[in-house]
Amino acid sequence: MILILLGCPEPPAMIPSALYLIAKLRKLKDIVIAGNHAALKLLDVSDVERHYLKGVACIDIDEGLRGLEGVEKIVSFVHNDGGVSYTVTYKNKYKKECLAILFGRKINEEFKKTLEENDIKVFPVRAFHNPYPLVKTIDKIISQL
Amino acid sequence: MILILLGCPEPPAMIPSALYLIAKLRKLKDIVIAGNHAALKLLDVSDVERHYLKGVACIDIDEGLRGLEGVEKIVSFVHNDGGVSYTVTYKNKYKKECLAILFGRKINEEFKKTLEENDIKVFPVRAFHNPYPLVKTIDKIISQL
Repeated sequence: MILILLGCPEPPAMIPSALYLIAKLRKLKDIVIAGNHAALKLLDVSDVERHYLKGVACIDIDEGLRGLEGVEKIVSFVHNDGGVSYTVTYKNKYKKECLAILFGRKINEEFKKTLEENDIKVFPVRAFHNPYPLVKTIDKIISQL
Repeated sequence: MILILLGCPEPPAMIPSALYLIAKLRKLKDIVIAGNHAALKLLDVSDVERHYLKGVACIDIDEGLRGLEGVEKIVSFVHNDGGVSYTVTYKNKYKKECLAILFGRKINEEFKKTLEENDIKVFPVRAFHNPYPLVKTIDKIISQL
C-alpha cells in the first residue's frame, strides 16, 4: 500500500496534481491518503461523484501517524515547513522508502536538505499555478514504483 | 447553455468548487467553461479521466468574448480585480443574467459594488482553503437556475 501525504493546500496546483496521482496510482496499487483538513475537504468537493476516490481511504494527517498496517512506500507533497515536518515524521515512523515532491514558486534548498538528511528522496519542481511540471514529476515517480 | 467563467485560480478552493459546479450543473444544462490558462490546466489535470469534463467545452477566457451562440446565463467565480473586469465585460457582451460568486479570505466591498452596478447578482462568500462555504453557495445558485 502506498501512503500519500497531503499537507496544507496553499498552492492551487496541489489538489489537482494529487487527483492526477490518485487517478494513475490506484490502478497499480492500494492507496491511503493522509491529509490536512482543508486538503481532504478539497478532494471531497473535487470528486463529488467519487470516480477517483472510490475505495481510497482518506484520513487525517495526524491519524496516519497512529500506525497503519501494510505501508510499503510514502509519497508526500511538500511546499512548506509543516509539509517537511510531517514528511520527516512519517519517514521515521514507518521507516519505508519515502518520496517527496518538493514544489512551490521556488525550490527551498533548506527544505531539500532537511528531507535528504532524513533519507527521503526529493523531487524538486517549480510549480504553483501551473500543474504540468508536477504532472511530469508524478509520471516519473509512477514509472519508478 | 450556461457559461462558467474562471479567472485566476489563486485561492485553492476555486478549482475544486468549479468541479463541483460542473458535476452538478452538467446534469441539468449544457455548459461551456471560459477560463484563464492556469485554471484550464488545473481542470485538465484534476479530471484526467474526463468524468466531469466529457462533453464540456473549455475555452480561453478571451476566446469566449468573440461571441458564443446560445448563452442563457453566466456564472462567474470572482476573487480579484481581473475577475471583476472579465465578469463585467462578459455581462455587457452577452446582456444575459449573470451571477457572480464573489469569494476570498474577505469579501471585497468595492468588487461587490462594481459588479452590482453592472446588474450582476452577487453571492458573497468567505472561502479560501475551505470549499464548503462555496459548495453551499453553489447549491443555492443551482436551485435557482
